[in-house]
Amino acid sequence: MASHSLTLPSSSPTFAPFSSHQILPPSLSTVRFSRPINTKPNHHSLRCSVSIEKEVPETERPFTFLRDSDDDSTHSSSTSVRARFEAMIRAAQDSVCEAIEAVESGPKFKEDVWSRPGGGGGISRVLQDGNVFEKAGVNVSVVYGVMPPEAYRAAKGSASSDQKPGPVPFFAAGVSSVLHPKNPFAPTLHFNYRYFETDTPKGKCKKCKSYSLFFFFGSRFGGLVFFDVKHFHSIQKQACDKFDPSFYPRFKKWCDDYFYIKHRDERRGLGGIFFDDLNDYDQEMLLKFSTECANSVVPAYIPIVEKRKDMEFTEQNKAWQQLRRGRYVEFNLVYDRGTTFGLKTGGRIESILVSLPLSARWEYDHKPEEGTEEWKLLDACINPKEWI
Amino acid sequence: MASHSLTLPSSSPTFAPFSSHQILPPSLSTVRFSRPINTKPNHHSLRCSVSIEKEVPETERPFTFLRDSDDDSTHSSSTSVRARFEAMIRAAQDSVCEAIEAVESGPKFKEDVWSRPGGGGGISRVLQDGNVFEKAGVNVSVVYGVMPPEAYRAAKGSASSDQKPGPVPFFAAGVSSVLHPKNPFAPTLHFNYRYFETDTPKGKCKKCKSYSLFFFFGSRFGGLVFFDVKHFHSIQKQACDKFDPSFYPRFKKWCDDYFYIKHRDERRGLGGIFFDDLNDYDQEMLLKFSTECANSVVPAYIPIVEKRKDMEFTEQNKAWQQLRRGRYVEFNLVYDRGTTFGLKTGGRIESILVSLPLSARWEYDHKPEEGTEEWKLLDACINPKEWI
Repeated sequence: MASHSLTLPSSSPTFAPFSSHQILPPSLSTVRFSRPINTKPNHHSLRCSVSIEKEVPETERPFTFLRDSDDDSTHSSSTSVRARFEAMIRAAQDSVCEAIEAVESGPKFKEDVWSRPGGGGGISRVLQDGNVFEKAGVNVSVVYGVMPPEAYRAAKGSASSDQKPGPVPFFAAGVSSVLHPKNPFAPTLHFNYRYFETDTPKGKCKKCKSYSLFFFFGSRFGGLVFFDVKHFHSIQKQACDKFDPSFYPRFKKWCDDYFYIKHRDERRGLGGIFFDDLNDYDQEMLLKFSTECANSVVPAYIPIVEKRKDMEFTEQNKAWQQLRRGRYVEFNLVYDRGTTFGLKTGGRIESILVSLPLSARWEYDHKPEEGTEEWKLLDACINPKEWI
Repeated sequence: MASHSLTLPSSSPTFAPFSSHQILPPSLSTVRFSRPINTKPNHHSLRCSVSIEKEVPETERPFTFLRDSDDDSTHSSSTSVRARFEAMIRAAQDSVCEAIEAVESGPKFKEDVWSRPGGGGGISRVLQDGNVFEKAGVNVSVVYGVMPPEAYRAAKGSASSDQKPGPVPFFAAGVSSVLHPKNPFAPTLHFNYRYFETDTPKGKCKKCKSYSLFFFFGSRFGGLVFFDVKHFHSIQKQACDKFDPSFYPRFKKWCDDYFYIKHRDERRGLGGIFFDDLNDYDQEMLLKFSTECANSVVPAYIPIVEKRKDMEFTEQNKAWQQLRRGRYVEFNLVYDRGTTFGLKTGGRIESILVSLPLSARWEYDHKPEEGTEEWKLLDACINPKEWI
């Protein structure tokens, strides 16, 4: 198989809050994943569509997770998009973890490093039951994998002419994070940038795919939080406006549409920006844009946490936060493309599911009373607002 | 379309712990459910494969949820399988709720009754935050629905000769229950009986499908609980042995195989019995068998709860129970056929998700220390044991 010569895209998110080592094209989730839930009870016949090698724990972080052939630093003076993207996501991981540890004043991230024999690997960092965060996870990963032809066809759309390609190798790299604070007035944040490439069979090159997303999950709404959401969206808009004035309105709406819990007819939270498949843009511009977005995580989020982390709250405030976390779990396990794909294809399960909150709650037929703060938050999840 | 003249099967369970008004053939979950998670963010294009009318709340329980044409009591002296099955599941609901309320000594179930304009409906009963139970739900439902041809084809297997049937009407009825006690030494119980029929297009009759399942979800293991699991399985075996000595070993293994969380490589709990597609047996026998199973719920489970409900426990015991409830949530939202189907086809969402525990927990990379009680429980979930 010929290697893909156009490493077009740039920014890239996981659709899983956290399955950043399971970075796959968005349409894959519409494929039958061949984990047939049999009428006959034989789980041994369950198949995985995508084969990913078993990971091996590492005692220290390698300089790069790239294969030698991709690691330009060892071969040439130019630096490939793959290498620059890996450097960007590892820097983003470092800066977010540093900011979180500064807020925590004491508790530190636990780090797990792993690699795969054929290339690729990742770094998972988790801080659990800290002073400020119930659970904070920041992962990077680099994956060399192979997609079956039907998954590839689904990923690039049905209009394709080659009906019978062989298995399609892919490369994916991403940073993915979910931050769940303890205080119910401090919002949960989810962010995610990914880079994705496919090699095609028979020497034929295909367009790469890339995606990114930012997501802001409000655990409570009202006067104060209204102010916070406005701040958060303003920082996103600033990052977008540096590149294209059409980005923020498009990506804001895209986010509202993607994080939709169909069975509830509500969004998971108060939005942010989401984008993928931006291949019409110049790849250098997209790499810069995703870097800008990654750099905006700390200024958009950390000041809000600083302000809200010590606010007093009632048992009812906490229960409401837990109910919203239940919705988060529902979205991730039922709809989220990266998570559902990751679960069914044998990735590192603790990295995929680190996105789940430490605790969540489900009450039967819970309906907030009209006019309450809870009701206002829910209303904003059902009817997305313009924040700026 | 000709109505199905052979109302063969009998017992019937939901694959969802609770979506008993979403009772569908097991293979349906392997069908692409046509809730395409679009690459373009337009949730309005989401389609549902199965159309079920919107439910209407009722102020009181009707005598039957059957359509007049199915309700033999108004037309003849004989009683159809549909009518007898509905009577059985409503009696089972009453007896289980009565036993739960007796254990609770005070707190009562909240009841919601609903119907659908074209026939069918259900009764949801939930007791939340009681003295003994964190959340106890017992639902019955009767559904008249229509499956698209591809779902029907998938449900009856690929060997079928009619490649282009039209939409296929179906009838389903079931009782479904999940009981989550507060005390971590008292086990969670899930049980579920369903009856399922299809009408076929062009006057051609197809075999009905029927299933049933019983499931015991241990929240803690060890000396005492070993004794409890043995009791629970003995009662199941007694019920099976009255009909066929091969039932218990077959259905016990089927249960272990079905409640398999693939991404964890562990079972959801300590087993029970599970069966479906028993169409080779006489329908009268199957109706009797499912009645026997339903009647065995109270003697198999309630004595265990009585013994364990007031045991002292530590914070660590409670955290472990909550972690196992997280696994329960994972299984239900990711794999369970009834739940995943129900979520994507627009049923009564509060009934479908009432199965979820009041609270659940996810810790990053939690591994019980070898030799502890938690480790023994996990080991039994990974390597199913013979209890009798």
